[in-house]
Amino acid sequence: MRALVLDAGWNPRPDYDLSDDERERRLAMNSSQTWQHPELAVEERERPEPADDEVLVRVRYAGVCGSDVSMLETDGEGYMHYSAYTKLPTVTGHEFSGEVVETGRDANLFEEGDPVTAEVTDYCGRCQMCRQGFRGHCENFEQVGFTMDGAFAEFVAVPEKLVWDVSELAEQYDDEDRLFRAAATIEPSTISYHGLFTRADDIVPGDYHVYHGAGPIGLTGMNVSRAAGAGKVIAFEPSDERREIARNLGFEHVYDPIEVDPVETMADVTDGAGADVHVETSGAVAATYPVIQETLAEGANVVHISNAGSDPDLALRKYQGNSAQLYGAEGHTGQQVYPRTIRLMAAGHIDNLPIVTSTFDLEDADEAVRRAAERVDGKVLVEM
Amino acid sequence: MRALVLDAGWNPRPDYDLSDDERERRLAMNSSQTWQHPELAVEERERPEPADDEVLVRVRYAGVCGSDVSMLETDGEGYMHYSAYTKLPTVTGHEFSGEVVETGRDANLFEEGDPVTAEVTDYCGRCQMCRQGFRGHCENFEQVGFTMDGAFAEFVAVPEKLVWDVSELAEQYDDEDRLFRAAATIEPSTISYHGLFTRADDIVPGDYHVYHGAGPIGLTGMNVSRAAGAGKVIAFEPSDERREIARNLGFEHVYDPIEVDPVETMADVTDGAGADVHVETSGAVAATYPVIQETLAEGANVVHISNAGSDPDLALRKYQGNSAQLYGAEGHTGQQVYPRTIRLMAAGHIDNLPIVTSTFDLEDADEAVRRAAERVDGKVLVEM
Amino acid sequence: MRALVLDAGWNPRPDYDLSDDERERRLAMNSSQTWQHPELAVEERERPEPADDEVLVRVRYAGVCGSDVSMLETDGEGYMHYSAYTKLPTVTGHEFSGEVVETGRDANLFEEGDPVTAEVTDYCGRCQMCRQGFRGHCENFEQVGFTMDGAFAEFVAVPEKLVWDVSELAEQYDDEDRLFRAAATIEPSTISYHGLFTRADDIVPGDYHVYHGAGPIGLTGMNVSRAAGAGKVIAFEPSDERREIARNLGFEHVYDPIEVDPVETMADVTDGAGADVHVETSGAVAATYPVIQETLAEGANVVHISNAGSDPDLALRKYQGNSAQLYGAEGHTGQQVYPRTIRLMAAGHIDNLPIVTSTFDLEDADEAVRRAAERVDGKVLVEM
Amino acid sequence: MRALVLDAGWNPRPDYDLSDDERERRLAMNSSQTWQHPELAVEERERPEPADDEVLVRVRYAGVCGSDVSMLETDGEGYMHYSAYTKLPTVTGHEFSGEVVETGRDANLFEEGDPVTAEVTDYCGRCQMCRQGFRGHCENFEQVGFTMDGAFAEFVAVPEKLVWDVSELAEQYDDEDRLFRAAATIEPSTISYHGLFTRADDIVPGDYHVYHGAGPIGLTGMNVSRAAGAGKVIAFEPSDERREIARNLGFEHVYDPIEVDPVETMADVTDGAGADVHVETSGAVAATYPVIQETLAEGANVVHISNAGSDPDLALRKYQGNSAQLYGAEGHTGQQVYPRTIRLMAAGHIDNLPIVTSTFDLEDADEAVRRAAERVDGKVLVEM
Repeated sequence: MRALVLDAGWNPRPDYDLSDDERERRLAMNSSQTWQHPELAVEERERPEPADDEVLVRVRYAGVCGSDVSMLETDGEGYMHYSAYTKLPTVTGHEFSGEVVETGRDANLFEEGDPVTAEVTDYCGRCQMCRQGFRGHCENFEQVGFTMDGAFAEFVAVPEKLVWDVSELAEQYDDEDRLFRAAATIEPSTISYHGLFTRADDIVPGDYHVYHGAGPIGLTGMNVSRAAGAGKVIAFEPSDERREIARNLGFEHVYDPIEVDPVETMADVTDGAGADVHVETSGAVAATYPVIQETLAEGANVVHISNAGSDPDLALRKYQGNSAQLYGAEGHTGQQVYPRTIRLMAAGHIDNLPIVTSTFDLEDADEAVRRAAERVDGKVLVEM
Repeated sequence: MRALVLDAGWNPRPDYDLSDDERERRLAMNSSQTWQHPELAVEERERPEPADDEVLVRVRYAGVCGSDVSMLETDGEGYMHYSAYTKLPTVTGHEFSGEVVETGRDANLFEEGDPVTAEVTDYCGRCQMCRQGFRGHCENFEQVGFTMDGAFAEFVAVPEKLVWDVSELAEQYDDEDRLFRAAATIEPSTISYHGLFTRADDIVPGDYHVYHGAGPIGLTGMNVSRAAGAGKVIAFEPSDERREIARNLGFEHVYDPIEVDPVETMADVTDGAGADVHVETSGAVAATYPVIQETLAEGANVVHISNAGSDPDLALRKYQGNSAQLYGAEGHTGQQVYPRTIRLMAAGHIDNLPIVTSTFDLEDADEAVRRAAERVDGKVLVEM
Repeated sequence: MRALVLDAGWNPRPDYDLSDDERERRLAMNSSQTWQHPELAVEERERPEPADDEVLVRVRYAGVCGSDVSMLETDGEGYMHYSAYTKLPTVTGHEFSGEVVETGRDANLFEEGDPVTAEVTDYCGRCQMCRQGFRGHCENFEQVGFTMDGAFAEFVAVPEKLVWDVSELAEQYDDEDRLFRAAATIEPSTISYHGLFTRADDIVPGDYHVYHGAGPIGLTGMNVSRAAGAGKVIAFEPSDERREIARNLGFEHVYDPIEVDPVETMADVTDGAGADVHVETSGAVAATYPVIQETLAEGANVVHISNAGSDPDLALRKYQGNSAQLYGAEGHTGQQVYPRTIRLMAAGHIDNLPIVTSTFDLEDADEAVRRAAERVDGKVLVEM
Repeated sequence: MRALVLDAGWNPRPDYDLSDDERERRLAMNSSQTWQHPELAVEERERPEPADDEVLVRVRYAGVCGSDVSMLETDGEGYMHYSAYTKLPTVTGHEFSGEVVETGRDANLFEEGDPVTAEVTDYCGRCQMCRQGFRGHCENFEQVGFTMDGAFAEFVAVPEKLVWDVSELAEQYDDEDRLFRAAATIEPSTISYHGLFTRADDIVPGDYHVYHGAGPIGLTGMNVSRAAGAGKVIAFEPSDERREIARNLGFEHVYDPIEVDPVETMADVTDGAGADVHVETSGAVAATYPVIQETLAEGANVVHISNAGSDPDLALRKYQGNSAQLYGAEGHTGQQVYPRTIRLMAAGHIDNLPIVTSTFDLEDADEAVRRAAERVDGKVLVEM
């Protein structure tokens, strides 16, 4: 089968403290310290065989994530930007939809033909983290498209327990092609859903939400916030193209933080109340945290989702004076996040199709990643 | 000014244990034990003067609540059905909108001309309940339209701290008449909002909600649930007219519990998962609780809102086997419930106008109450 | 090895609707409908071999639970009282402590000699319940001592992911024998911990707690409540012996509900405030729920833990008028409940040793169960 | 009567943007910008008359708070260190106990002779903050001992709604003198109680707590944490005297953060798990936040209580990687915090008497403040 394969040279930086596990398995804990000169290419690969507890999926669409981009981008010495886990070479791609074509011997939740998507993080279910219920931080985790072969390919084999049926999306998308496009945007939507509704506590309908950054995660997040009954959804985003996409989604309060004074703008839009929910989705924390601290509503929840390159100063007095709290949020797995997000889409509360602004064929999947690197799209999809 | 006045004969039942306070002030704690032969009439009354901490409102619309109806209905001996607090004679009506026309000396949150609605329950702020934060159960509470003169009148004087500005509704209702109609439906909407989002804990977007009863509280509640991102909103309601209103609001899963088997219907609609949120809004608990216990999703929240005439058997094993919980909810005051509900309406997430099915002039306000007693309307309004 | 084995005759009642699974595997979903004439005997059994993911434990102590008793007790037709899951014959016993003597090939969290206890319910980690995080209600669960061989035996094999190290108890119990006795009471303590701190929400230090029933679950629960900073711990229990045990534990407010008026007593002890936390641990719900509803503090949490033989009337108005809620709670697994309970014991916040009032040798384990059936002990232990 | 009066020169810094309210009422919003050359002296004052809604208390003991110290300390230009609200001259002191000697006309919750303490912050009950339930951030608040005359005096008049009965402390303190000493330490205990149990969410018994700073707030907080069932209570404190006080309270894990490596020490004490609850009570955030971020348990709650002079860098990746959150907490009012803290003391779960290390007569109250400024005591009390 055809697949987009990422490879790079294993060349740990001299001052990087390599663990035994990294040395033996070449599973990098911090890819930016070990992998040099990454290369992406569409290649011929063996079609995977599903293990006993796996499901084989014929992929229909897979989206390009910021992490896919940062696995290709490098610093001056040619080291990969991406700072989390990888095992190379690997087929990348983890935001996908497709149809079940085969099921492993012990996999009985799905049947051939079922339309599905999947979670990214596999968990062992037995380590100290897992057995206390913290599966998102499993000590033996694997990640589809990072440490296991992923979905920029004709087929992908995924542990059954990560797979979710999306057939109820047919209630909104009578056209199968649109259904699979929409289903490929479930994964990024779950990032915000998780941050807002499993990490933060007590976000209620009518709250004012503000997104600091309207890239793919911010845009899908804004849709989640509106679906959840946000009183207003506000966004600050410097890219003209992305602000335009936000407006096409029907959002009114979308601003260029370079052009306007975000603090004043927030005061206007919220009539002085500030935002109840702040979602950091830009990574430009040196710019956003000073705005956040000046626009906290009483009891505000700050949900930090992005990969920030630096650590912001935190104005503790502001968090005390407004009874505010800050939650660190990242990927998740093995909760109700996927089925709830799927239901929101099936109910028509979320429609992400206007966020999809470019689509490439699998044969040009490397071009799709390079396109996403321009950071002007909503979501770039690859069609298999 | 003209006003709808409720009066009745003070004739405590012989076996009712009258408190000193009831004897002296004739403020009935259980009206069904003390008031006989209630009568409603539109009369001439003095226009009220706002006290120092009050605001005088020219009423535009006021809705008829089930409690207004039950203050008129009687049992075989002529005793009032209504079983909570009243001090008669009183001007009734507590779901209203209007414009501020005068403010008391210490009232400075509002200006003449401000469009407003108000909470029902006044609280002292100093008793043992209030000073622990439980204002909804203030030991010295008063209620607009029950123990204080209410809003079926040209003017009503209300403590400023209960009044909320609704001018932001103009974002959805450019016509002033429609704005005031909508604003008169805020109070019933807050009942469900309070039950779901301040009483219950952990109701999240995508949950399946079912309303057991689609009268005025159920219908406004269904709108709240949809605004909050319910995955599905299901309703069981025996009145043909009310099911029709629910369908006009765009709800698809609306059933006659006499005609269908509610347990089977729920299994179909939820694909066997059951409902995550059950809202009891019918009062017919002998019929609804057996359905609830068979259709609990894992972790289900049962929110009891209605005035039930009897106590249902509770199948404890079902609540244990599904990790379910039951919350008693009733009126509330002095929280974020009103401003959040107003924001949902201003954002267009809630539109209650299709629920308003009859409107009467103040001069016919008693007819409005009698009409509501037929229990076929969504909401009956009185226009001043 | 020696082991206490429970067996019975498979004779499903004619009107019981047997599932295919029950028919084929003889795994009863409701044991009281299928098993007749149960018999308990200490027998010779093969020492178990740990599976790859299991740990073999040499048992030191195992406690007799109410379920062990009800598997032996029968109705007029000789059917077992116990109404949940069993697969017979089985070695019973699920509240135990012991030392690891062998580990399966894939089990690497424990070493030979580690002192341990274990959770009761095994979960598959992959079914629809598990993969949403609801492991306590796994669709393919097994239970140690009910469907798998248990701990009234010299050795027991347990899935590693259910096992918890208790070596930190040495901080309180320098004597090894006392350490293992204490560790055998962890499981019953977790039942209340789970009900109060993972099921209920917002129980805070200083709350008044009342236990309706002070048998083994009530007594260990009272210790959990005191450890958590209950302002007062109150108990109603008709057995003279069990009230005496409660007093020996240092509890002052322990009453016979037959002799005193529980509602008046509660008013006295709580100075009219009522209890913030009600724990139903008696099963005699026809007697306890009428007391609960009259003694609810504002915002009260009612945690239902017991196996009740009937369904009580629920006075909904009382739950509304006091902003109260009721939680169904039962067994649990795969959370932080065990490690947190172990820490409470290691810190000296909980000492259950005074609850242990009888100890039998393994050879007399059947006598231990018969003794527990008299319902006058705190906890009956079997020593291996 | 005799009273400790604080006065200073009103000399707003040239670059400070004085509000109209500050100019007119001389109620400083940031005292460090307006008051120069503060002076403390014991003087003769008129005995206060209670207003209609007030209670007059004969003070028995009042504690010296860090804010009392910082109202006396100055910078190089003689400006007060204290950066929050004051109106001078005022009688200082806000942590007190005493007996009711007179009640205002509308005050009926208390009787002459009742032993009491009181909250610090008065609230209007009507502003936009109050009427949404946020009384701790009332727009028209006043503070006993800061903007109203306080308790370093023979008598203090306090709004009745802030006063709490402490007579139940007699269950632990049979000696009246000890009862009043203990009662004077309720206020500082509530600071941590509020941070841990009304601000943070989901702190459960068995959690490991660490206090970064063991001054008066840290020490009383450690007692609150132990009362709430902390699995371990750990403290880092550079003062030898204060570490000694902590050890006298029975805390074992008390370290000098200069002498030991706090990160390694935490790893040892928590067996690598980290702390579930971090309480910042030192103000030295440049030193403590780097430790906090390296010792977060999965799901950790960081509760920031102190007045920090600077803003720390926040390592967002650590909060993401550990599912951690940070809560800003400060004073509070009008909740269940006081009655719950009083119950903990009455139950014997908290005994603060060993924290009281110095006691001064009222006539030497200025000396008491100077003594507290040495920062080696647990709590310094003034006896009237």
